Amino acid sequence: MTRWSEAQTKPSISEASEACLACHAQLHPGMIADWRKSRHANFTPVMSLKRSKLEQRVSNEKVPSDYMNTVIGCAECHTMNSGKHKDSFEHNGFNVHTVVTPSDCATCHPVEVQQYGKNLMVHAYGNLTRNALYQDLMNSINGIQTFEQMKTTIKSPDRETQLDSCLHCHGSEVKVKSVKARKTEMGEMAFPLLSGWPNQGVGRLNPDGSKGSCAACHTRHQFTVEMARNPYTCSQCHKGPDVPAYKVYEVSKHGNIHSSLGKGWNFNAVPWTVGKDFTAPTCATCHVSLIVNESGEVVAERTHQMNDRSAWRLLGLIYAHAHPKTPDTTIIKNKAGLPLPTELTGEPVGKYLIDIKEQEKRKATMQRVCLSCHSQGWVEGHWARFENTIKTTNEMTLTATKILLMAWEKGVAKGLAQKDDIFNEAIEKKWVEQWLFYANSTRFASAMMGADYGIFANGRWYMSKNIQEMLDWLEFKLQTIPDKKDRKKRR
Amino acid sequence: MTRWSEAQTKPSISEASEACLACHAQLHPGMIADWRKSRHANFTPVMSLKRSKLEQRVSNEKVPSDYMNTVIGCAECHTMNSGKHKDSFEHNGFNVHTVVTPSDCATCHPVEVQQYGKNLMVHAYGNLTRNALYQDLMNSINGIQTFEQMKTTIKSPDRETQLDSCLHCHGSEVKVKSVKARKTEMGEMAFPLLSGWPNQGVGRLNPDGSKGSCAACHTRHQFTVEMARNPYTCSQCHKGPDVPAYKVYEVSKHGNIHSSLGKGWNFNAVPWTVGKDFTAPTCATCHVSLIVNESGEVVAERTHQMNDRSAWRLLGLIYAHAHPKTPDTTIIKNKAGLPLPTELTGEPVGKYLIDIKEQEKRKATMQRVCLSCHSQGWVEGHWARFENTIKTTNEMTLTATKILLMAWEKGVAKGLAQKDDIFNEAIEKKWVEQWLFYANSTRFASAMMGADYGIFANGRWYMSKNIQEMLDWLEFKLQTIPDKKDRKKRR
Amino acid sequence: MTRWSEAQTKPSISEASEACLACHAQLHPGMIADWRKSRHANFTPVMSLKRSKLEQRVSNEKVPSDYMNTVIGCAECHTMNSGKHKDSFEHNGFNVHTVVTPSDCATCHPVEVQQYGKNLMVHAYGNLTRNALYQDLMNSINGIQTFEQMKTTIKSPDRETQLDSCLHCHGSEVKVKSVKARKTEMGEMAFPLLSGWPNQGVGRLNPDGSKGSCAACHTRHQFTVEMARNPYTCSQCHKGPDVPAYKVYEVSKHGNIHSSLGKGWNFNAVPWTVGKDFTAPTCATCHVSLIVNESGEVVAERTHQMNDRSAWRLLGLIYAHAHPKTPDTTIIKNKAGLPLPTELTGEPVGKYLIDIKEQEKRKATMQRVCLSCHSQGWVEGHWARFENTIKTTNEMTLTATKILLMAWEKGVAKGLAQKDDIFNEAIEKKWVEQWLFYANSTRFASAMMGADYGIFANGRWYMSKNIQEMLDWLEFKLQTIPDKKDRKKRR
Repeated sequence: MTRWSEAQTKPSISEASEACLACHAQLHPGMIADWRKSRHANFTPVMSLKRSKLEQRVSNEKVPSDYMNTVIGCAECHTMNSGKHKDSFEHNGFNVHTVVTPSDCATCHPVEVQQYGKNLMVHAYGNLTRNALYQDLMNSINGIQTFEQMKTTIKSPDRETQLDSCLHCHGSEVKVKSVKARKTEMGEMAFPLLSGWPNQGVGRLNPDGSKGSCAACHTRHQFTVEMARNPYTCSQCHKGPDVPAYKVYEVSKHGNIHSSLGKGWNFNAVPWTVGKDFTAPTCATCHVSLIVNESGEVVAERTHQMNDRSAWRLLGLIYAHAHPKTPDTTIIKNKAGLPLPTELTGEPVGKYLIDIKEQEKRKATMQRVCLSCHSQGWVEGHWARFENTIKTTNEMTLTATKILLMAWEKGVAKGLAQKDDIFNEAIEKKWVEQWLFYANSTRFASAMMGADYGIFANGRWYMSKNIQEMLDWLEFKLQTIPDKKDRKKRR
Repeated sequence: MTRWSEAQTKPSISEASEACLACHAQLHPGMIADWRKSRHANFTPVMSLKRSKLEQRVSNEKVPSDYMNTVIGCAECHTMNSGKHKDSFEHNGFNVHTVVTPSDCATCHPVEVQQYGKNLMVHAYGNLTRNALYQDLMNSINGIQTFEQMKTTIKSPDRETQLDSCLHCHGSEVKVKSVKARKTEMGEMAFPLLSGWPNQGVGRLNPDGSKGSCAACHTRHQFTVEMARNPYTCSQCHKGPDVPAYKVYEVSKHGNIHSSLGKGWNFNAVPWTVGKDFTAPTCATCHVSLIVNESGEVVAERTHQMNDRSAWRLLGLIYAHAHPKTPDTTIIKNKAGLPLPTELTGEPVGKYLIDIKEQEKRKATMQRVCLSCHSQGWVEGHWARFENTIKTTNEMTLTATKILLMAWEKGVAKGLAQKDDIFNEAIEKKWVEQWLFYANSTRFASAMMGADYGIFANGRWYMSKNIQEMLDWLEFKLQTIPDKKDRKKRR
Repeated sequence: MTRWSEAQTKPSISEASEACLACHAQLHPGMIADWRKSRHANFTPVMSLKRSKLEQRVSNEKVPSDYMNTVIGCAECHTMNSGKHKDSFEHNGFNVHTVVTPSDCATCHPVEVQQYGKNLMVHAYGNLTRNALYQDLMNSINGIQTFEQMKTTIKSPDRETQLDSCLHCHGSEVKVKSVKARKTEMGEMAFPLLSGWPNQGVGRLNPDGSKGSCAACHTRHQFTVEMARNPYTCSQCHKGPDVPAYKVYEVSKHGNIHSSLGKGWNFNAVPWTVGKDFTAPTCATCHVSLIVNESGEVVAERTHQMNDRSAWRLLGLIYAHAHPKTPDTTIIKNKAGLPLPTELTGEPVGKYLIDIKEQEKRKATMQRVCLSCHSQGWVEGHWARFENTIKTTNEMTLTATKILLMAWEKGVAKGLAQKDDIFNEAIEKKWVEQWLFYANSTRFASAMMGADYGIFANGRWYMSKNIQEMLDWLEFKLQTIPDKKDRKKRR
């Protein structure tokens, strides 16, 4: 990290931040040393605002004057907007809050925060916890099962388990539950006791009423763009079988190049120059970053909406479909009344989804990045293949769904008609894997040329096998529960 | 990458290539910037041919004179041999082809291309698609299944799905399907529309009649040997559960060393000096590269045949066996008439396979690499253990095969006798996993000391569990299909 | 690696080591080149002992005088204590042994060896092979199964398979089985033929009677602390589904930071300064290394006991529990007489386990590392969540256990009462996966904030699914074995 390369003298730290450092440099040496390496610790907004438009990292040209001439230190962020922060507490003469939020960051970075506000991620908490089907899914995964009398019973998951599980990435609701007195090296002091803490999930509900966490990707306290641009950071939430984006990237030629040659790249340059700073894309290159060519022409504008270069939503739902129009997906209902953007049999619920024109626009934005290194023919060929894979994986999911619907109809599993959780029985869990793991993996592999993730590594091999195993399960059940009144002999 | 370290002046670019760059540097800045970092862009064949024999990267001492004195630029490769290229098209006064092939590369690198021609990989397309059993396997994986009347039906996979799946690594057949006019910044221009494109698979069938793609490992357009020598590049096709070579390497001590200390190694030196340039092997070290010691003595000759340091073929077939004699395996038939190098019960079909003398020779070649860092006792102990594992994993596969044969015999699954696809039913898929995933993984772990990949990570744990699950499946089926005429009560 | 930065002249190599190098530099150039990069090759104990206490790597202040003034070369280690080494053999006038052991290393590093002696790892061989249940587990995994007459039979695994499997990490018993004459470039020479070799497992039984292998982490022959501190080294044995510590670390924020920024860290500094040398912990930071802050104050003392910062034993046993008091766990018996630290239903066998006071002490030691970068509130919140996860994962294991107990009771599987191996049937293997894979993974994810490893990547998703599949299996069996006398109709 460059330090004061543009300044004659080291820029000053505010008195308030100096006061923080007086104790905390000793108490949390790693945290402070990390911050000292950051741009925040080495540049003032005044210094940053002198840069050209394309080089700009501060998107507010009118940063409040009291922040302009010192570096961005502890106090700047942790005492900012304290009136709005329910987690604010009196601490040695300062009103300090633990949880720095996008609203705080917006003081200098409003454009990014506004873009992020249109991102599905910012609603990751509500979209999960306020969707009745997803609640069932969470219960079926996180609830404790017991076994008595040849039956299993499931109880609702406790709060800490939810936080340790789905909400780790989706974000928690952070609230002040009480104030706790704690003995410290400076005597007894009072601190707010937070529930839902720690958490840096992308859709966190913050004590100041805002949503999200910039630290999910811009890791504290160095906040280096190098972190956010490296695919490792994305892997925290995008590596599991439900969303194997990172794994697919890693084996893609793009990932191979990054792993082999990335050590010589410049991950800190703004703007980010294709060919000069890097020779293969990372996640950020295609989905987020401001990319220019060596002549300084813009290849792609920076976006923190993340999906505005993506025409299709590949993951998380039963069928891939056009992206929803609004990031708050709790408003979506299909014809059957389920909170889903498609019917259970795959037909998209058009009115909630972006239309083909918007899809074409997003595709074109993404393809401009591709065309930096690939010919038009290459890109078109790739895209046709990818969109064919969206279609065929949806078909393979439909087949699995039909087997499940038959199981419900025949009464060998309890489904929607019985108002039962549709994710809690073995056959239902196999159905979930069909779309959440295997169809997803296949689509990601197709999108990023991830080879075996489209075949043997949770791809088509498993889609095809899973259908056969669901069929066998159905047959076994039909044969072994012979007294069920609606049972028909198969042979 | 060194630039002109040996030349007084920067070597010149041909007029033709300058003409390409005039537009394409603007159109595809990343592609061109990448090439500018390559040796191709910075050295002429004349400069390269001045090096000593061991340092030589150009294996043709008689490079055509018109290529000798300029760097190897766009036009050199993309207009070479254009008469043979069905994908060649008129483009601003040049006959240009999109797909650069091993035959083109052979102009300067004939020895490597010739060696590669003896490699199984070069036949990866035909060996897969012209083997009736493998075709069945592909159909069973890539075909779309439907569910009606309590039965599933499978339809043949479409071409794009095959390309997105198996053929991604095996290679596609690239053909000109039509000519397409496209509006460009330079006005309307005509381009060939290619089927099977994009693709960089190792066994690609090219429009000039050649086979293979050097770019599979020597990544465009930097073509750095650093890429081909880093294990990440191999991971593109050798990481899935069917061929977990990279994953095993990564946890092996060799991989640990590469990950921890590799950032200080010299991946670009030719020849590659053990101990000086690197302190642990990568995939290329053991299987491909020219290795010397610090005195300049050759430890291993460069080979692009890849398997000529390997006595055993560990993967892809039902049982591990001696390598086939010829890289075109479509000629192989076992006694039962199946296109397999062993019987279904494991006995090798000797006449198609290398004999023990050739095996010993290959083993000795490989072991000379091992002996660079390990004692004779270590190497012998390792090898004895590895060959024992080949034997025991074959035994565990045989057991799974016997259960499958029983399922066919009892009529609870349809097999060879019924001329049914032997990979489409659940029990058959479990059988495939026994050898394609678990026995493979165990053997790779043994070959490269990959610890848990021989046990819990798709190794022996799964081999042993899979047999028990196949047995249970067989029992369930026998019990629940009671009216089948050849059924015998088990108890 | 610094070379003689503190010395005026290059320190000398002993005459004995020079004699070794005379031939072996030629025979095993990689091995020797690697050693030449080591501190051993570049510093004498005298030079090392001049450093300050905190910088000290040599923990014996009284290194024998004949080792003091030369670097630590081949002969120093491979001829040391030769009287105790059964693998010692006459070789060109020297008594040489192949297997260098912790007892040899203790000459200069006695404190570390003594600490390591209290580590579970040092007993990894005996704890596995002298525990009757674990023997059954090994047999069920590594034994070759055959299928005849609709039944499978398992035979005891051969020695080489055990070595290739569990003992790769746990360590082998290395013994001299015979002496073998071998033709060498220097004429015929005799060498001991070792069984259990090669092996660098953590609990290896050595020919000098000692236990363990320092080379498991301190990789030969560079022995750089950089290797031991990089998480890749730990991944050799801690990556599989049974102990996915590395995988969890990799996706944790700590791992993300290491992957993105670690290339700029100083992995060789002793002591290791938080914030200065590194900005996020690796495995070694939290579990092993001597950590100081920039003022030189000790954050954590170095330990090679490994578990003395860990209150809980998360892996390897059916239920998570307080760590055993002694590293030799073969003394442990539960009330039912099984060699387990808990009952089959989860209750801990208190007398063999550390008490809550010791747990609190270990937790506090670990938390001092956390507090280098995190606030007290963060750390407490994290810990409460983690300990809740220990509880809930144990509950989910208990449920799986109850289903298994029912299967045994109903006679559809053979268990303890029948004195059968409790790991060899399909239902038993699913039970093993509940705790060995899924509960473990969930706990590791909780301990290190590894997100999806607590949910879809072998976490809660699989725990919840596995219970349903075990239940289905039980039902199928009860329905399809109708003549069993103790069978009760479920409906």
